[in-house]
This record gives sequence, C-alpha cells and structure tokens, in this order.
Amino acid sequence: MTASHDVPFRLVIHGGAGAIKQSRLSAEREAAYRQVLTQSLSAGYDVLKIGGSCIDAVTAAIVVMEDSPLFNAGKGSVFSREGQNELEASIMEGSTRLAGAVAGVTTVRNPIRAAHAVMTKSTHTMLIGPGAEIFAAEQGLEIVDPEYFHTSYRWEQLQKALAKKQVLRDHDIDSNRPFTNNDKKHGTVGAVALDRHGNLAAGTSTGGLTNKRRGRVGDSSIIGAGTYADNRSVAVSATGTGEMFIRTAAAYQTAAQIMLLQKPIHEAADTTLKEISSIGGDGGLIVLNVKGDYAMRFNTSGMYQGTIGHNGIAWTGIFHDESEI
Amino acid sequence: MTASHDVPFRLVIHGGAGAIKQSRLSAEREAAYRQVLTQSLSAGYDVLKIGGSCIDAVTAAIVVMEDSPLFNAGKGSVFSREGQNELEASIMEGSTRLAGAVAGVTTVRNPIRAAHAVMTKSTHTMLIGPGAEIFAAEQGLEIVDPEYFHTSYRWEQLQKALAKKQVLRDHDIDSNRPFTNNDKKHGTVGAVALDRHGNLAAGTSTGGLTNKRRGRVGDSSIIGAGTYADNRSVAVSATGTGEMFIRTAAAYQTAAQIMLLQKPIHEAADTTLKEISSIGGDGGLIVLNVKGDYAMRFNTSGMYQGTIGHNGIAWTGIFHDESEI
Repeated sequence: MTASHDVPFRLVIHGGAGAIKQSRLSAEREAAYRQVLTQSLSAGYDVLKIGGSCIDAVTAAIVVMEDSPLFNAGKGSVFSREGQNELEASIMEGSTRLAGAVAGVTTVRNPIRAAHAVMTKSTHTMLIGPGAEIFAAEQGLEIVDPEYFHTSYRWEQLQKALAKKQVLRDHDIDSNRPFTNNDKKHGTVGAVALDRHGNLAAGTSTGGLTNKRRGRVGDSSIIGAGTYADNRSVAVSATGTGEMFIRTAAAYQTAAQIMLLQKPIHEAADTTLKEISSIGGDGGLIVLNVKGDYAMRFNTSGMYQGTIGHNGIAWTGIFHDESEI
Repeated sequence: MTASHDVPFRLVIHGGAGAIKQSRLSAEREAAYRQVLTQSLSAGYDVLKIGGSCIDAVTAAIVVMEDSPLFNAGKGSVFSREGQNELEASIMEGSTRLAGAVAGVTTVRNPIRAAHAVMTKSTHTMLIGPGAEIFAAEQGLEIVDPEYFHTSYRWEQLQKALAKKQVLRDHDIDSNRPFTNNDKKHGTVGAVALDRHGNLAAGTSTGGLTNKRRGRVGDSSIIGAGTYADNRSVAVSATGTGEMFIRTAAAYQTAAQIMLLQKPIHEAADTTLKEISSIGGDGGLIVLNVKGDYAMRFNTSGMYQGTIGHNGIAWTGIFHDESEI
C-alpha cells in the first residue's frame, strides 16, 4: 500500500489509569503531565507524518514517557520490595504479528527499545533478566546505572508501602493521603499507532508495582495481556492491575471480540474491563483499528491519555468528562 | 457442587509435539515414553478419583513428566546457549481464573509446583529469575543444584546445535539424524483436567529451546499463550514453537473461539494451529471442557499424549493414526 498524504494516521497514548482525583491534582502538576503527554504525541506524530512506521511511532511516543520521571516507566519507575527498579515492556506489529518483550531489566534506559530490538533483531519474542540486558547492550542500546531510574518521590512511596505492608499500584498524585488497599493508582505507559501504510502497532512499558515481590512480572511485558496488535482487528495497550489483565488476556480478549464478533471497539474494551472488574481489578485500555477508529476506556477515576491524528492537533485528557468517547 | 461418583472427570496430558518419526522410534524408546505417560495419567487419576482438585491433578501429572529425563521439562530439560537449564511453567484454574507462572528458574526441581505456589500463595501471577527461586524456597519446595537437570542426551543436543549454529526445538528421537532448521522437535509437557467438582485446570512446563538465548521465555509460562483455563469455555495446554504460540495467544484464542462462537473444541484447536502454521510455526494443543469433551490436536508428525477418565483406563498415543479425534 503506497503511503498517501490522504491516508489517515493516528496515535493514541496512555500514561496510566488510576485513582486520580481532580480535586487533588494541583494545576501545576496537571499541566506537567499534560505537557509530557503532548511531547509524547508530538514525537510519535513526527514519525507518522513523514510516512514512518507504526512501530517507530509507538516507540518514540513511549520513550518520551519513559524518560520523564512523572510516569511509572523508565525513569520514575516504582520500587520493588527490595528497593530495586525492575522494568518490563512489550511491543507488537499488526501486519506480521511479530512481537518483542523484556522483563526484569534494571539497566536498560528505555525498555521499549529493548522490546523493539527483541522483536526485530532476535528470533525470540521475550527475554528476561540478565539475558535481556546483555542482548540490549549487544544491540547498542543505552545502558545506565540502576540508580538512573531512582526518584525520591517513588522511593517515598516504597517506604510508605513497606511501613503499611502493602503492595501498591501507582499514580500517586495524592501524596498526603494515607495509603490503603483500596488505593488503585496505576502507572504504566503505552501507545497504539496506525501509520500511512495501514499498519497497526501497540506498545506498553512499566516499572510495575510499588513493593512488589522481586521478580514479579505484570501484564505490560505479556503479549496478549498488556499489548496486542493485529491489522485484522485492533492494536491495544493496557494499564491496570496487571495480574487481572494477565488472567483475562485483556489485550487479546479485546481484539478477539472485535475480530470474532465485530463488536464496536469501545464496547469490546468495556466488556474486557467489566470482566477485569468482576475478578477484582481495574484499569484502562486504548484501542485503535486500521480505519483510524479509536477508544480510550477506563474504569478508574482517571487515565492519563492523549491522541493525535493527521491534522496534527494533540488532545490530552485525564478524567471521564473529558474523554471523547 | 457436591462431588458425586457419577460425575465424570478427565485428565488429558501431552509430552510434547514434534517431528517424531514412527520409523525411527525404537520399540524400547516408544515403550519408555508410553510408560511415563501412563504413570503421569495414573498420578493425576489418583487425585481425581477421590474428589481431589483439577489443579492438584494437573500438578501431579506434570510432576511425573518433569521428574522423568525423557521429557523437556524439569530433569531432562534442554540447554540454553550458555549450557544452562532455564525452566518455565504455568498453571491456571477455571472457576477463579487464578493463575501462576515462573520463568528463568534454575534450581527448582518441579517448576509446576512453583507456578502452583505463585498462584495460591502469592498475590502475583508471574515471578521470574532469582525472585521466583527465592519464593519457591520460602514455600518449602525442593531446591536442587542446577546440575540436577543435566542429562548427557540434552547436552549432546546442545553441542550439535552449537556446531551448526542453530536453535532447536526438542524431542530428538532421531539422534543420528543431522539437525536442520526444518527439524521441529518440540518438548514441553502439559495437562488439562476436569475434576468431580466440575472445575477445569491447565498446566504446562518446559526447559524451552536447545541453544536458546539466555533469558529466552517461551509460551509455557505465558498465561493465554501456553496455558489457559476458564470453566465457561475450556482448559488448554500447548506445545510447539513458543514464539508463534505467544504471538497468536494460542491457548486463549482456542478458548475464545469456543466461548464466543461456540465452535466444537477440535475445530477451535485446529483453527488456532492453522494460524500458527500461517506464521511459520507448529505444535499441538490439548483441550478439555466441563462436560468432559476433549481434543488432542497437532500439526506435527507426532505428539506424546494420553488421557484417562473415570473408568480408569489409560490411553496413550504418539502418532496421528492413533489419535481418537
């Protein structure tokens, strides 16, 4: 398919779903989040506009959020019980259905780039731990000292969680609130893109859960759970209570409902979220098809989200009353 | 639901699908495989007969195959490029849809037990590497020296693969044949069970691929890819070219076709295998529903398989002309 300037393209991103309370989000902090979301959209747009691939657009958008300390991915990732940052990411392309994922990485500056390299430069789909880090280094990706990911904000979150013996999901913008088991703050960043060639891609990246057990892997590096892309259906990226997204194969389930039942995409996403809710979880999904139809659905109070199409106008949102669908 | 002696129960197992050639399988070797398959069925049957849970039956059946050096799981696992045994396993229960998985484990004698412990004794769904091994030890599981898994047979497979610079799938019963990229020999073991309480469970365990990169994870520890269980549809365990099973979310895809389209189970499995084949992979699936209907489907020349129901008569098979469906 020849790239045409009339062919629509789109990028949809999320910076995590969670218990984000508008009343407690200071104007400055909200502006800071929206700024990074806009930068992320801009980075992906720059790729798509000139006919670049959906995979490169997803990677570019996610890298911006990984590099920002505001999101629970890359720099600014949450800490495990042992005070480590253990990162994970996955990426998938919709025409070939090639995919790549890494988990348990501690020195790769941009896990999404490592996932991309696994997909395109190896014969495997998923690499974990030291094996993943060695591969990333072999591929010339930027390797950092583990301290790079550390932010005092996340370190304090860990200390609070340890004191209360809780595992926390992230997106704490209510830093003065006591943590409870009902606090559902989910970090994780993701993107789905449709390029001028008519191909879809999806990607997701996270630092996981505050106070998680060492070695805990969530949905963000599991193809079919946190990430899926298939030109015949949709590209999906998820954020939420990882374990429940794995157990419901959330990303694939959303795509399957669309492919097998031809459900409208927002309905498929809502059905998936409803099932996740029925087993005690919550979060959000961004979904995009080859016609450029998209949905940003979440059953938490908020989800950092954004989208940009070929008209170049970026839209960002956080709360339900802003969501376009 | 009260356990009733009239309620059917069933166990279906596989010991891997691959390029198993009847003409090259000595009578002694074939008998040895069938014997372990029968022991595995017997172990699971003993659990189900007295009203034990599907999860315990799946675990018992898989432990027998992990403990046998004949299968690429637990003892007898294949070696990575660096000469290490890196094991993975996953398990899932169909009424709660709780699941557990481990990957990158090197000292846990029975990875399926570790996956079971993750499911029932942690708040997580997947643990990898040292974190998984520490957890397994904390749970009192048997920890062994990494040398425990070593068999000269698998070590020789690695040496041949290194000499030819190939990554191999397993089940080499043609030890005199030169290895080629077209040799598709898949190890991995798995089981699906229906207990007297009407619940389904699925489990899978493997050593992965001969000469795999360090840290490579295949479908056997990925919920939705190698393992899935949902009372509303089916329990599934897969064996094959792991990367393609991940990319097609094979286990979940099989269940989704049944749940969303009410396809007969063998048809759903065949459709999944056809998609896997279309992206260059192959292997097999075992599938079981709450009525006790089951299927053992594979698009390789053979798949070590077996089943037993409440009449206590074990059936084992390897080749297509034996398969009951």
